[in-house]
Amino acid sequence: MRTYKVIFHIDEMNKWQLLLSNVRNLLEAIENKTISIEVLANSEAVKYYDSTKNYDININDMVTLHGKGIKFVACNNAIATYKIEKDKIFDFVDIVPAGVLELVEKQSEGYAYIKP
Amino acid sequence: MRTYKVIFHIDEMNKWQLLLSNVRNLLEAIENKTISIEVLANSEAVKYYDSTKNYDININDMVTLHGKGIKFVACNNAIATYKIEKDKIFDFVDIVPAGVLELVEKQSEGYAYIKP
Amino acid sequence: MRTYKVIFHIDEMNKWQLLLSNVRNLLEAIENKTISIEVLANSEAVKYYDSTKNYDININDMVTLHGKGIKFVACNNAIATYKIEKDKIFDFVDIVPAGVLELVEKQSEGYAYIKP
Repeated sequence: MRTYKVIFHIDEMNKWQLLLSNVRNLLEAIENKTISIEVLANSEAVKYYDSTKNYDININDMVTLHGKGIKFVACNNAIATYKIEKDKIFDFVDIVPAGVLELVEKQSEGYAYIKP
Repeated sequence: MRTYKVIFHIDEMNKWQLLLSNVRNLLEAIENKTISIEVLANSEAVKYYDSTKNYDININDMVTLHGKGIKFVACNNAIATYKIEKDKIFDFVDIVPAGVLELVEKQSEGYAYIKP
Repeated sequence: MRTYKVIFHIDEMNKWQLLLSNVRNLLEAIENKTISIEVLANSEAVKYYDSTKNYDININDMVTLHGKGIKFVACNNAIATYKIEKDKIFDFVDIVPAGVLELVEKQSEGYAYIKP
């Protein structure tokens, strides 16, 4: 059985709907194969993780995806730049010190890279 | 002799001219090396494959590229979303069930990823 | 000690600030690990390398990054398309015949790909 690994990169707010749709399509397509999917947000895209804001976010949808094993990750540099309070970030989000380093490390571990 | 493999990803209609220019430049640059080039369109970019629409498409140019071995591929999820009739899609286009899975699989086979 | 390798791809003028910020963040994050970072500009993004233009360029900043080992590279096809005089391109910029081929070759050598 094949195990797939992929990291999705998002740095623009207006790409979130497309990205989440991409992730859902991928989950449906893999059937009984195993897969590791990580969503890495840096730059302005981290604002989507701010629970105090009311974007067009479908929080239930993201929680469901997280429950299916999707890892949602935020870049700490971007969190600082956009002055987001860390305790207001959704619980299902992990924080890494530098999003770009995460992108490099994951690819060096064999993850595919997709930028919607 | 080196064999290169690359998958181009496009999900925006306004990137097609740039993408086709990228593909032509790549073909010119490889000289006597062999290369596998695939163009994977998902999201709204699949509309460019619709033969009933009159975009700024240079169909002859795409047919020529296809004749040189370039694979043009469409995501079936996107075809359904944009309600494109499959028998109206250009003959030289292949359809895969999920574009994102194709991007993951090709990279796991050693394809480079380029998003113009 | 781990050696990271990454190629940043830029083909839009308005992404330069974000890209340079990404590079700075990556340099800060790697600490004592070694890293090879290349910035590959093609399409309109090569105009940022033109020393006769006055964009919002922070030339000192790019020179500093170059001094820290960052490689700035321009696609010769794009230079021709945008009619940039080669002797007006900043000294710290290398030119390759085809930017897309550079992206393919670097990834085949194990470089991660990031498109800000």
